[in-house]
Amino acid sequence: MPFDHIPPLLRTSSSKIVLLVLDGLGGLPIETGGPTELEAAKTPIMDRLASEGALGQATPIRPGITPGSGPAHLALFGYDPLEYEIGRGVLESVGVGLHVGSGDVAARGNFCTLDGAGNISDRRAGRIPTEEAIPVVEQLKSISLPGVSTEVRHVKEYRFAVVMRGENLNPDIDDTDPQRTGVPPLPATPRSPSAEYTADLFNQWIAKARQKLVDNQNANGMTLRGFATDPNLPTFQDSYGLNAAAISVYPMYKGVASLVGMQVIDFAGEAPEDEFAALAGAWQEHDFFFIHIKKTDSKGEDGDFEGKAHIIEGVDQALPNLLDLNPDVLIITGDHSTPASMRTHSWHPVPFLLWAPGSVRPDNQSSFGERSCARGGLGNISSLDTLPLALAHAGRLEKFGA
Amino acid sequence: MPFDHIPPLLRTSSSKIVLLVLDGLGGLPIETGGPTELEAAKTPIMDRLASEGALGQATPIRPGITPGSGPAHLALFGYDPLEYEIGRGVLESVGVGLHVGSGDVAARGNFCTLDGAGNISDRRAGRIPTEEAIPVVEQLKSISLPGVSTEVRHVKEYRFAVVMRGENLNPDIDDTDPQRTGVPPLPATPRSPSAEYTADLFNQWIAKARQKLVDNQNANGMTLRGFATDPNLPTFQDSYGLNAAAISVYPMYKGVASLVGMQVIDFAGEAPEDEFAALAGAWQEHDFFFIHIKKTDSKGEDGDFEGKAHIIEGVDQALPNLLDLNPDVLIITGDHSTPASMRTHSWHPVPFLLWAPGSVRPDNQSSFGERSCARGGLGNISSLDTLPLALAHAGRLEKFGA
Repeated sequence: MPFDHIPPLLRTSSSKIVLLVLDGLGGLPIETGGPTELEAAKTPIMDRLASEGALGQATPIRPGITPGSGPAHLALFGYDPLEYEIGRGVLESVGVGLHVGSGDVAARGNFCTLDGAGNISDRRAGRIPTEEAIPVVEQLKSISLPGVSTEVRHVKEYRFAVVMRGENLNPDIDDTDPQRTGVPPLPATPRSPSAEYTADLFNQWIAKARQKLVDNQNANGMTLRGFATDPNLPTFQDSYGLNAAAISVYPMYKGVASLVGMQVIDFAGEAPEDEFAALAGAWQEHDFFFIHIKKTDSKGEDGDFEGKAHIIEGVDQALPNLLDLNPDVLIITGDHSTPASMRTHSWHPVPFLLWAPGSVRPDNQSSFGERSCARGGLGNISSLDTLPLALAHAGRLEKFGA
Repeated sequence: MPFDHIPPLLRTSSSKIVLLVLDGLGGLPIETGGPTELEAAKTPIMDRLASEGALGQATPIRPGITPGSGPAHLALFGYDPLEYEIGRGVLESVGVGLHVGSGDVAARGNFCTLDGAGNISDRRAGRIPTEEAIPVVEQLKSISLPGVSTEVRHVKEYRFAVVMRGENLNPDIDDTDPQRTGVPPLPATPRSPSAEYTADLFNQWIAKARQKLVDNQNANGMTLRGFATDPNLPTFQDSYGLNAAAISVYPMYKGVASLVGMQVIDFAGEAPEDEFAALAGAWQEHDFFFIHIKKTDSKGEDGDFEGKAHIIEGVDQALPNLLDLNPDVLIITGDHSTPASMRTHSWHPVPFLLWAPGSVRPDNQSSFGERSCARGGLGNISSLDTLPLALAHAGRLEKFGA
């Protein structure tokens, strides 16, 4: 359980909580003394919410630690990533929409190039582009093995994910990547006797894959890494008493949400308006809503300061659609910072806006930005505090002790 | 390891980190509404660094806890003093430059006065002054015992430290100080059978010492406390991938730095300019530099508000020598507060300045002082966050998770 002290305090409520995550929201100025992306963006709605609500800055994992997307979202959901480690194979798989159920074994795959002697000559198959890799993944989909099923999906460039499903599977298997060239891929080697059966199946699968790939110029081999199974995370229902829904365009975030038991909402379109329309459609069925906006992060990674600010402005313009639903608690934050100036995720704390009519202590801030959040009434918080604060402001927690 | 999650994230870098510690930096006003020592000091360089960097206030151990020098520095170095307990005998010994290696046993000693019956009449030997105690310590240096060597060094007034070196030593021994007068000192008593041999050696050493001291008027006896051995702290190299150097005038701080594997730099002089010259001399050989300024604390303990401000001004004037080296990260802070108004260490958080070109989020503060730090963008942090933040800003940490 993320917070052992919370389930005994839960009480029934019809209140609705919205957690709006702008991926990579936190930023930096591109010129000395200048604004950050969020500060530069014209956000009249968020600024009004900031003046009515309270601000703070949230540290996703620990000070100085730059989070990947999976751990950053787990932290927002209250699951300390240093405590809940999720195998890389599972994250990669759920990231592309592959279901990893209890007892399934997932792995990350890299295509590689093998020379005539079977030794690896390029560990990333010449970094083949996505369009070249997709048909290679298709070649693998027809592989069948006795007693189990396998599902393969392309991830990006030379990377793919594979999930094996069946009885008595065990992920306790070493990577097959020897981490260098001039040697053949390693066999899938069990780290314990109970994983021998599974390792043998993966070796059969690899052998059949080799046969199918043999005529490819670049991607004629593969390595598998990060064997892992469903982490069996406590659900949102058990942890927080919340019937949660997830609204996201990208599979990765749907995947992480599904790992904590959120129902993933299907919808058409990719714009904030489309996501808020999906929210409206699911409003009656759920009491917690995770909405994920991806492009703030993408623009940050592109180094596109103006583009990131523009995405934030687009979310702001669509916000009235969300506010029309009258949520009891609205939190607007990011999973981590992605300053355009750095073109990558960073360790900086994330702007955090908590809005809840009637129960938020005002802090005299009137705009949503890094500087105002640093002076906000919530102060320095951990992303792990998000759900407990949301539950409290939603009237969903009883008093602790007499 | 101070942070188990950090070593797997370390990456190679040529960046340089400087941690400049002004001992007891934090202060208080001496008149209502007036400035603190740091605020009263004219510090144009630190003020510029504050405007370019980010400020915060760091709690050394826990809120309300006034740290001693040893724990305060351990906290700055990332080693939680509540987790890493270092025996007082070791701290006292390394504090006066005595090496405590693996398997050595160190103890703190107090000279005391014994009456004709051998009972303690004064537990601190009349608080004999240093000049009187030094020759007494000299008397102890000639004591020899079979199979081990001992090293004794004077600390201050009636206090000294002793280190025993040899095979099969064990520090699991009770203090010999009965904590009251009218009774004889206790024998060194082992708390476990494996410490019997060591306790016996210390009792032999005490007996020989008694013979040598018998004619002294005040210091004719002694008690030993805090038996302890090398804590085997994880090194800076293992914990942070840093080849660290320590620059300090005072042995205590060299000692604590050496416990975490820093190389102590020898140099001549005592002024900040001398310490920064030593820094320049060691610049190529190391990538992390701990520089310790003692006199801010000394002036605070003297109750000398103006004197403490003057020391801070002297450091500020010398800072260009440090900045000329172009560090990638510079942190200026204290190990704890020593308000001149209190004439002692205090529990107040410590001003914290983080400067790192290009990666610091600005916070609209333009001077280095307690009030500006309380409003700074870093917010309330723990001294334990110092190294993780330094590593992040120095580009020395990979992303956590995918």
